[in-house]
Amino acid sequence: MENFTFYSPTFFSFGKGMENEAGKLAKRFGATKILIHYGCGSVVRSGLLDRVKKSLDEENLPFVELGGVQPNPRSGLVYKGIDLCKKENIDFVLAVGGGSVIDSAKAIAAGTCYDGDFWDFYSGKYIEEAIPIGTILTIAAAGSEGSPDSVITNEDGMYKRGASGDAIRPKFSILNPELTQTLPPYQTACGITDIMAHLYERYLTNTKEVEVTDRLIEALLLTMIHEGPRVIEDPNNYEARANIMWAGMMAHNNSVGVGRSQDWNSHDIEHELSAKYDCAHGAGLAVTLPAIFTYVMKHDVMRFAKVATRVWGCQMDFDNPEATAKAGIEALRNFYISIGMPKNFDELGAKKEDIPQLVDTLCDGNGRPGYINGFVKLDKNDCTKIYELMI
Amino acid sequence: MENFTFYSPTFFSFGKGMENEAGKLAKRFGATKILIHYGCGSVVRSGLLDRVKKSLDEENLPFVELGGVQPNPRSGLVYKGIDLCKKENIDFVLAVGGGSVIDSAKAIAAGTCYDGDFWDFYSGKYIEEAIPIGTILTIAAAGSEGSPDSVITNEDGMYKRGASGDAIRPKFSILNPELTQTLPPYQTACGITDIMAHLYERYLTNTKEVEVTDRLIEALLLTMIHEGPRVIEDPNNYEARANIMWAGMMAHNNSVGVGRSQDWNSHDIEHELSAKYDCAHGAGLAVTLPAIFTYVMKHDVMRFAKVATRVWGCQMDFDNPEATAKAGIEALRNFYISIGMPKNFDELGAKKEDIPQLVDTLCDGNGRPGYINGFVKLDKNDCTKIYELMI
Repeated sequence: MENFTFYSPTFFSFGKGMENEAGKLAKRFGATKILIHYGCGSVVRSGLLDRVKKSLDEENLPFVELGGVQPNPRSGLVYKGIDLCKKENIDFVLAVGGGSVIDSAKAIAAGTCYDGDFWDFYSGKYIEEAIPIGTILTIAAAGSEGSPDSVITNEDGMYKRGASGDAIRPKFSILNPELTQTLPPYQTACGITDIMAHLYERYLTNTKEVEVTDRLIEALLLTMIHEGPRVIEDPNNYEARANIMWAGMMAHNNSVGVGRSQDWNSHDIEHELSAKYDCAHGAGLAVTLPAIFTYVMKHDVMRFAKVATRVWGCQMDFDNPEATAKAGIEALRNFYISIGMPKNFDELGAKKEDIPQLVDTLCDGNGRPGYINGFVKLDKNDCTKIYELMI
Repeated sequence: MENFTFYSPTFFSFGKGMENEAGKLAKRFGATKILIHYGCGSVVRSGLLDRVKKSLDEENLPFVELGGVQPNPRSGLVYKGIDLCKKENIDFVLAVGGGSVIDSAKAIAAGTCYDGDFWDFYSGKYIEEAIPIGTILTIAAAGSEGSPDSVITNEDGMYKRGASGDAIRPKFSILNPELTQTLPPYQTACGITDIMAHLYERYLTNTKEVEVTDRLIEALLLTMIHEGPRVIEDPNNYEARANIMWAGMMAHNNSVGVGRSQDWNSHDIEHELSAKYDCAHGAGLAVTLPAIFTYVMKHDVMRFAKVATRVWGCQMDFDNPEATAKAGIEALRNFYISIGMPKNFDELGAKKEDIPQLVDTLCDGNGRPGYINGFVKLDKNDCTKIYELMI
């Protein structure tokens, strides 16, 4: 096992009605003037935003609002949020929404404490300082509610990049599974796909014998396989929603990723798709994962056979482990299809003639060195073949 | 799933050589004068204490020392530590040792901020305030390095009781698996047993459909079953030590216990044994768990069948789930025996003629209401029968 540090000082408040604690929690973590950041109106229509404002009012906490975050959140709104925070002397950002809203809030929180262009953080600079953040989560997916990460789309070129820093870990996150019950099945399935991708990215390691991390990841994948279909069948299944919501947080606060190398090539490959076609990140991952896994499987057949047998219930073929590894990838592909995810470029709205451009941006764009690296180092030729497997 | 909050703001520094960071971490978390608390000399003999002192010296952090913590840590030394902290204006307690040392340090840290008798906390009063604590762990077992809990033996009557409070969660914990490599096999096995007991206490729930927590517990049990025998066979197996050490923390910081009722009857029943006979807590648990599980199995046969099939690899007997449940309990018993744990009162050094007294202290002692309660409510008659199953 590799040496590591792990620090997850987020206070999680989980369950029915917990959003009414937002004011108390914001006060506990030092807020005196708040920016409420949200998306495109569903939190307004559902009445959630009103409940949150009431909770802040009860604690005499003043606030300003900035809505309008789009899925695949954009740099333009971040700049606007930073200006607003500086002008209004905001000292706490409260994100009410899903991963896009939270990621946008994180970018604003970091940019508010920084004199330069916030995009520096999305070009490799570590985030050392940010005003504190709280979140009220409305979709189980990105895991941003417990992570030190953020992904933003740069509108100047339409490409996505990530930034990190312990300073942008939320001080508190409120997770009420009821808030996810109004999500359309497609969005729910996108969330399930994203959570499972976060787990696979951590499963694909080149570090040997980190059994505890393998087992914890398998546990969360098994949870998703059990609960995913239940929630697609019955969107009001609170228990299934709750299990998925906590699994989504656990999948990405890195408690199941310690002590070893991770992958993240799948996310890089997908980010080009959702940046270019504005498809849902989860939908892009559903097409990406089976393709990249098929391509890199031979790098460590036994690892893919392990997840196939332990998670997907495949019988181990001791004469031909590769057959087991392949069966596990097929099981993943079929699972995604079964919950309504797209299976190829066509269903995603992507075009095969764009592949050269996707590969260029992926491998060369924004200062990249001509390849991406994770479980396997992938150059432009590799990435071309992986995109071709999605056609 | 029940509503819950989860807050684990401990900074974990894991791996080889990490103890040399103790000074930096203590400074980061605000220490200006430190009490180093430790046990009965092994940390002196191994040179660990000298490395820790050097690390504090390098940060110009003054310290005083208090050694002498015994296994099943005693109230007497806690009073001494509180007096010392008050006299010396200590503002940080650094525990260097195992669960007993850490639990003693937690009691001292809480008592130092309290005008009354620290035992109030071990009689049910929640710990609201304590001076901050850091730990350098030398045995994977109690999980106290990541928990808000402490157990102390009251020398006035020789009985053990627990206390809790977020204030006694360590600010940082340093986990270097190498530090556990010199442990005798028996102590290592006691630690393995304790970790598995923490998992079973969380597994035995009356809350339905918390699949994510079930799966995470199973993952850690499977890790222990894989790694336990490896480390007993080769005490220098770093990877096995590392997996066990992280599993031990995860087993008890409650990240695998959220959203549901838990048991803890096994711990209560065992505490009477280690308090009376001064046996190792883990050894007592090895004798206790199979007995209590046999007694309470019928309360929820399917739960015991679940752990039997998913963790112990038993075949589900669909015509007779009780047979599967029993097979899982037998597998647990045999596992403990295989790693060198005692299997009954005789091997533990306990006496059947003491059972009435054990039951009295357990159910009536220190203000208890005549029974203990968890997965199942157990009165004195039940507890008598459970102890009798250990003969």
